[in-house]
Amino acid sequence: METVNLGLIGGGTVGGGVIRALRRNGALMASRLGVNLAIRRVAVRTPRKHQDLDLPEGVLTTDWRQVVEDPQVQIVVELAGGTTAARDMVLAALRLGKPVVTANKALLSAHGPELFRTAAQHGANLYYEASVAGGIPIIKVLRESLVGNRVVSLAGIVNGTCNYILTRMKLEGIEFNEVLAEAQRLGYAEAEPSLDVDGHDAAHKTGILASLAHGFWVDPKSIHTEGIRQISRLDIQFATRLGYTIKLLGVIKTFEAAPSGKKKPARKKAVDGPRIQVAVYPALIPNTHVLASVNHAFNAISVRGDIVGDTLFYGRGAGADATASSVLSDLADAALDLKHRSVERVPCFVAHSSDSRVVPMEEVVSRYYLRLEVIDQPGVFARISALLARAKIGISSIIQPEGHAGETVPVILMIHDASNAAMQKALKQIARLNVVRAEPVLIRVEPFE
Amino acid sequence: METVNLGLIGGGTVGGGVIRALRRNGALMASRLGVNLAIRRVAVRTPRKHQDLDLPEGVLTTDWRQVVEDPQVQIVVELAGGTTAARDMVLAALRLGKPVVTANKALLSAHGPELFRTAAQHGANLYYEASVAGGIPIIKVLRESLVGNRVVSLAGIVNGTCNYILTRMKLEGIEFNEVLAEAQRLGYAEAEPSLDVDGHDAAHKTGILASLAHGFWVDPKSIHTEGIRQISRLDIQFATRLGYTIKLLGVIKTFEAAPSGKKKPARKKAVDGPRIQVAVYPALIPNTHVLASVNHAFNAISVRGDIVGDTLFYGRGAGADATASSVLSDLADAALDLKHRSVERVPCFVAHSSDSRVVPMEEVVSRYYLRLEVIDQPGVFARISALLARAKIGISSIIQPEGHAGETVPVILMIHDASNAAMQKALKQIARLNVVRAEPVLIRVEPFE
Repeated sequence: METVNLGLIGGGTVGGGVIRALRRNGALMASRLGVNLAIRRVAVRTPRKHQDLDLPEGVLTTDWRQVVEDPQVQIVVELAGGTTAARDMVLAALRLGKPVVTANKALLSAHGPELFRTAAQHGANLYYEASVAGGIPIIKVLRESLVGNRVVSLAGIVNGTCNYILTRMKLEGIEFNEVLAEAQRLGYAEAEPSLDVDGHDAAHKTGILASLAHGFWVDPKSIHTEGIRQISRLDIQFATRLGYTIKLLGVIKTFEAAPSGKKKPARKKAVDGPRIQVAVYPALIPNTHVLASVNHAFNAISVRGDIVGDTLFYGRGAGADATASSVLSDLADAALDLKHRSVERVPCFVAHSSDSRVVPMEEVVSRYYLRLEVIDQPGVFARISALLARAKIGISSIIQPEGHAGETVPVILMIHDASNAAMQKALKQIARLNVVRAEPVLIRVEPFE
Repeated sequence: METVNLGLIGGGTVGGGVIRALRRNGALMASRLGVNLAIRRVAVRTPRKHQDLDLPEGVLTTDWRQVVEDPQVQIVVELAGGTTAARDMVLAALRLGKPVVTANKALLSAHGPELFRTAAQHGANLYYEASVAGGIPIIKVLRESLVGNRVVSLAGIVNGTCNYILTRMKLEGIEFNEVLAEAQRLGYAEAEPSLDVDGHDAAHKTGILASLAHGFWVDPKSIHTEGIRQISRLDIQFATRLGYTIKLLGVIKTFEAAPSGKKKPARKKAVDGPRIQVAVYPALIPNTHVLASVNHAFNAISVRGDIVGDTLFYGRGAGADATASSVLSDLADAALDLKHRSVERVPCFVAHSSDSRVVPMEEVVSRYYLRLEVIDQPGVFARISALLARAKIGISSIIQPEGHAGETVPVILMIHDASNAAMQKALKQIARLNVVRAEPVLIRVEPFE
């Protein structure tokens, strides 16, 4: 049986996971693939820390160039993380015509087009199943299984840390800060949690998915990104009473224009291609939707295709083993492509829509949950309603939850279909009303209709 | 751009769906794949019935051989259904070295090994993503995405008709016969519903999944199959109160031996390879599991891999469009394999486990929900408990639901880990007790621990 030699860069959590998984199931994979995967070189920072990997003499090195440039190494696996050295590693391997497997979503988000261009120029390929949603094979699903579909919409729970926090807030009725502190203590959240809880990691992943789904490279800067710090226990409780669950979502949709009486401004360049919403924000989703049942550190991605209808893909979003599973899947594809000389069969990125663009969030129409703290006196509803009516924003319901007494009480407004620009403007006016105390909390609603 | 010519056999629901989907998204697929898919010939029984397909002159024929043998046709799509003529069609195409795409689970179940052997002999390939669970890409997931995993267990809702019936029974509190009659009236269920409601269709699909997951061909006759006719409204209600939902599942598990004090009989041939449970039956699943949220005609397949952990794949299990989406995915693979001469890259079936076997259901250990109708008098529990104790079957709880009065009342026993042989034997004895009236209802419990 043919053997394909691998060179790994990074012996950390994921690297160790890949090495252990190959040791455990390498023979099984070989019998399934007809190709044997052998680890030839592994670059790590401190070799003496990796005795537990139990690798043969001469495999470990501290120099990633020795991995990439070893003429025996046929596939390079970049698991070092970061966006600077990792970029050098991936580019160096591709320039040698060697296929690269990576789990590095930040690298792809920052340097995707350059990497894809280099791969194409050198007849290599770049495989990145593990970069989005850990063990969920969403890259292969979008590129191959749903190849006959236009992606009408996609909504994904793609950050395990945020989902873990929101799940515990809901199940235990505790506040964000309390769960975050405990998650940090247990190692489920980073000491500097911003990448996760402010939505940036989800934005990296959502950008990759949007690019694949819509065939043009989505600039990460164009992705409207909100995190979950402003979500309180109270919002989760009210959402529950209304039949919803709050999740941090990556949302990709074909844009629906804001209802407007005005004509289009003539000075704007006419764009005929599809206009796509790409954003990350917490949202209320109906409890009847499967995404609402996705708890703890699990991820799930719901995809609506114009032919297939609604689909959903669920699994662990992070961790050594789930990520290793996706790396192994990429290694299988890379090895088969080497064996069958089919490296261009499924290229790393196919730009197939030159006229699509991401619409600014202000133009996107959403539904909203709005929680206000108001003074408990007659006439409050009337003032708020009048203000929204003047802004032509329709209220679908106003709820004053029972069991709250004091100088101020919470009021929930459910709002139908207003542009984000109109809603933000109205929100500023509402916040200035003297009957409204505390900062209003605005969370979008995704009805999945 | 290269064009690949397709020949379709069958212009019915799925055939029409494929033709419409290709017309709608053919250009998009071509831009994604770099290959243009063109429909060259379509065989149908009655051409005048297919005017709505709006095909060019000369494309329609009544003779499937004209499709298969047309030298211009490069890929044959078998959507005729059935297992006799369809077998001839697929074999004829493969013998000409033409790749075949099929959605025909009954054909694969009945003649899989012969078709796979013929494909290998003639250097063609057979693609069958659409044969299991409609739009869910479970074949590609098992073969490619989870290639680095041993499948520890798999549980699938793979029959939309049964899931539709069970969902309505639960949501509306009505009986099986009532829902079935309405489903038949609406065209959701066949006039002869046995293939669906008695579990046979689910068994075809479960057998295909088990074969792919475990690398040996699972003989359909070895699949223990039960349907949902015996499930009553009462069982669904009691399950709900206990925190469970009843679903018809295809279940594949690595077998756990029945606890037994006896030594292994020496005359049995020692088998060292994995022993696999492959079965179809209704089961109580915890409401916290995502499968419990899969409603109406949707399908979902939960797969636990030894590396990836728990995953789940959800979508429409039937219907022209969902099935067409999977056919398009196979057509893309087949066309790319032709273009890149990589037809053996992912063969239609790789036998990689020669010593695995399906264990007889009697040896499988399960948990159970047992509903008895008993005479409402003291001592009833004691007699049933004593009988089960003698059979060494442990009861985890006995529940006498409130709100039932009369000569007989329902009693629910939840039973832990007993072999199916022991349980069936005990059940016969229980049914003979004079305090037990009506036929006992035994449903397995799948705890997903």
